Amino acid sequence: MPPLIEPRTLKGFRDYAPALMIPRERVLQTARTVYRSFGFAPMDTPALEYAEVLLGKGGEESDKLVYRFRDHGDRDVALRFDLTVPFARFAAQYVPQLGTPFKRYAMGPVWRGENTAAGRYREFVQCDFDTIGTTSNAADAEVVLVVNALFEALELGDFTIRVNNRLVLNGLLESLGVLDKSVPLLRALDKLLKMGRDKVVEEMQREAGVTAEQAAQVLTLAETEGSNADKLARVESLCGGNAKAAEGVARLRELLAVAAAGVPEGRVRLDLSIARGLDYYTGTIYETFLTKLPGIGSVCSGGRYDNLAGLYTKQVLPGVGASLGVDRLLTAMEELKHPWLAGVTTTAPVLVLQFPGASLVDCVTLATELRRAGVGCELYPDAVKLGKQFQYAEKRGHTLAVFAGPEELAAGVVKVKNLAGRTEATVPRGELVATVSAELTRAKP
Amino acid sequence: MPPLIEPRTLKGFRDYAPALMIPRERVLQTARTVYRSFGFAPMDTPALEYAEVLLGKGGEESDKLVYRFRDHGDRDVALRFDLTVPFARFAAQYVPQLGTPFKRYAMGPVWRGENTAAGRYREFVQCDFDTIGTTSNAADAEVVLVVNALFEALELGDFTIRVNNRLVLNGLLESLGVLDKSVPLLRALDKLLKMGRDKVVEEMQREAGVTAEQAAQVLTLAETEGSNADKLARVESLCGGNAKAAEGVARLRELLAVAAAGVPEGRVRLDLSIARGLDYYTGTIYETFLTKLPGIGSVCSGGRYDNLAGLYTKQVLPGVGASLGVDRLLTAMEELKHPWLAGVTTTAPVLVLQFPGASLVDCVTLATELRRAGVGCELYPDAVKLGKQFQYAEKRGHTLAVFAGPEELAAGVVKVKNLAGRTEATVPRGELVATVSAELTRAKP
Repeated sequence: MPPLIEPRTLKGFRDYAPALMIPRERVLQTARTVYRSFGFAPMDTPALEYAEVLLGKGGEESDKLVYRFRDHGDRDVALRFDLTVPFARFAAQYVPQLGTPFKRYAMGPVWRGENTAAGRYREFVQCDFDTIGTTSNAADAEVVLVVNALFEALELGDFTIRVNNRLVLNGLLESLGVLDKSVPLLRALDKLLKMGRDKVVEEMQREAGVTAEQAAQVLTLAETEGSNADKLARVESLCGGNAKAAEGVARLRELLAVAAAGVPEGRVRLDLSIARGLDYYTGTIYETFLTKLPGIGSVCSGGRYDNLAGLYTKQVLPGVGASLGVDRLLTAMEELKHPWLAGVTTTAPVLVLQFPGASLVDCVTLATELRRAGVGCELYPDAVKLGKQFQYAEKRGHTLAVFAGPEELAAGVVKVKNLAGRTEATVPRGELVATVSAELTRAKP
Repeated sequence: MPPLIEPRTLKGFRDYAPALMIPRERVLQTARTVYRSFGFAPMDTPALEYAEVLLGKGGEESDKLVYRFRDHGDRDVALRFDLTVPFARFAAQYVPQLGTPFKRYAMGPVWRGENTAAGRYREFVQCDFDTIGTTSNAADAEVVLVVNALFEALELGDFTIRVNNRLVLNGLLESLGVLDKSVPLLRALDKLLKMGRDKVVEEMQREAGVTAEQAAQVLTLAETEGSNADKLARVESLCGGNAKAAEGVARLRELLAVAAAGVPEGRVRLDLSIARGLDYYTGTIYETFLTKLPGIGSVCSGGRYDNLAGLYTKQVLPGVGASLGVDRLLTAMEELKHPWLAGVTTTAPVLVLQFPGASLVDCVTLATELRRAGVGCELYPDAVKLGKQFQYAEKRGHTLAVFAGPEELAAGVVKVKNLAGRTEATVPRGELVATVSAELTRAKP
């Protein structure tokens, strides 16, 4: 006997046992249903790609985070670190045939060798949707509608969708004469919530070389309070003469009007402090906050970009989309004691017990009959003591137990036990399906 | 401008555009629904693990196929090459808390650096289910019921589930005095369909060192023709005195009787030539063949094993399960011109057009109303010529187009066009949902 190998996972990687995987599947299925209801179509790309394709020529910071190695054919390959870069590569290859507009969703694991922390993993599931091939504001507004439908379906309580537009920020920077510093400025602005005003001003001076006054003006806009209309008016008074800012305001105004057709009042908020660190956003930007858990930050973010696939093709592909961080969401659901994570680890509401002495054929016949009627039904595999089988059902979270011993079978009856209510009924064999269906309907929360 | 990067995937890897991904999602959702209806619960493990965990101490042949490298922390890591080994590691870690029986399903990509061929990829999706922690024949019989329900739901036409039991084969080998040669003998037997009788006899002599007569006796059993009952009788007459063979016959006989409670007659066939190359199977073995495409081989295979996780734990975990090869199945579906692969690339049956001159808010209001009634509904993002929007709908496969110009909106009506039937109706705004729902019901195949 060779020595045992220690069963363990890599740091930053985790297993999904059923108690966590059942809610993960439910979250993904919910997202799938919502994305599909807007006509987004699924696609997938390989986990492994040429490193050059994923990393381009630069990407210094991300390089360190990427799992990169040489394969059997000595190819320089890497694991995808998001679902956007592979989508860009895919779009360059296929959009000429597939045509535009092209609406896609993608869900799957990505890998980053980052430092780990609570709720932060080296393998995590992303769940993105994008519309490319159009600059229409209809697509920007639709992102808000999708996010709204998604979070309503996730039953997470109230939430706000914060929107902004890079054109407004860039318009302000242009009118201040510091547009060429937009990258370090917006990167600093993005930290406002985390670091506070003073440190952001400091970073703007240090990293972008702007004056304290210029930094203050950026923050004055970002910190504007009031209604969405108030904020739009403020932008217009501060930098309305700037063409970029004016376009940003017009698009935001239309987006808010369109969103009102589908989203309850007050849920979509213009937030001029949202910048999103990522350089490639050029228009509308989005963040989503759970009212009960503001501290975890945005759980669904995105934005508009001018050109998705410029690294790979001359075809200009503007688009807009957002990404749901599934693992962060599951962590939030755990904190909120969300009912989807109540610890039920069975996928079938009924457990058919094997009454000692009953024939396996009889038990399978009962279970098959229920399944054919659309009732999920597990058969306990061993004819052990009933007490042990009931224990299993309680641990797993079955709603009903169905069983029949030789006496019951001879008398043409079956027993149906409600495991929560602890009520037990003896019903004629022919009424099994009807009784079970009625009990399950009654037991539904 | 830096030069463009060529957008391409690695050899043996492929993208799933919507036309292929929509059926892949449907296959997986079908499997999920079937597995759940039997009480199997979902689980997942990381794509990346310690190489030692995945490869154990030996595994010479598989080593070459495995994507293995050193990560940032200089750990020796590898990508999973199946869903069984990670399940074994998982079981060793968690089954002490989770308890047995433990029924799981898992679906996800695995990676093997094999030579590629038509329908054979280096990244492919597996979809497994297993019951562990029991030796009960109820679990073995259930595999047949699950495979039957799965392939009925996949709408692939008729199929056969072939079963055998390693105990029968090993019993015969034991009665011939060559049990110690079972690995090379069964590996050779497994090639019967591919190589024919003569070459198998040759390989048995060469690789296992048995006599031509011994090889012939193994093949005589394997090639037994007739009904399931005939074959069981033949086993009993050839090696019924052997205890192993007798146990195998008893389990097969019960399995066939139980399967008859849920599977149409003739679909489950005892096939004494099935050996399955994998060494770890010890009891029942399964293969599934599509009647219309026997040449592609088994599309769903599995078996019983005595001990899943012996590499990692002293806890003995017997179990039984099977695996659906999703990519091979998709290839089969393409060959069969399966209706799930009819080229529809939309996920929403309705396209709301943007009539030039109609307001975006009005269009979004129409679409939102339909979605709230449960009708999947895509909004064309640009107010371009209607002809272009109709072209898009035809290319993507929408069933209905809904649109209203300023005149229609003023008159309180909407147009609904059936894109297949090319009929168009003008309906009162208040009847939109009812009309669309009725049209969609009528259009369903």
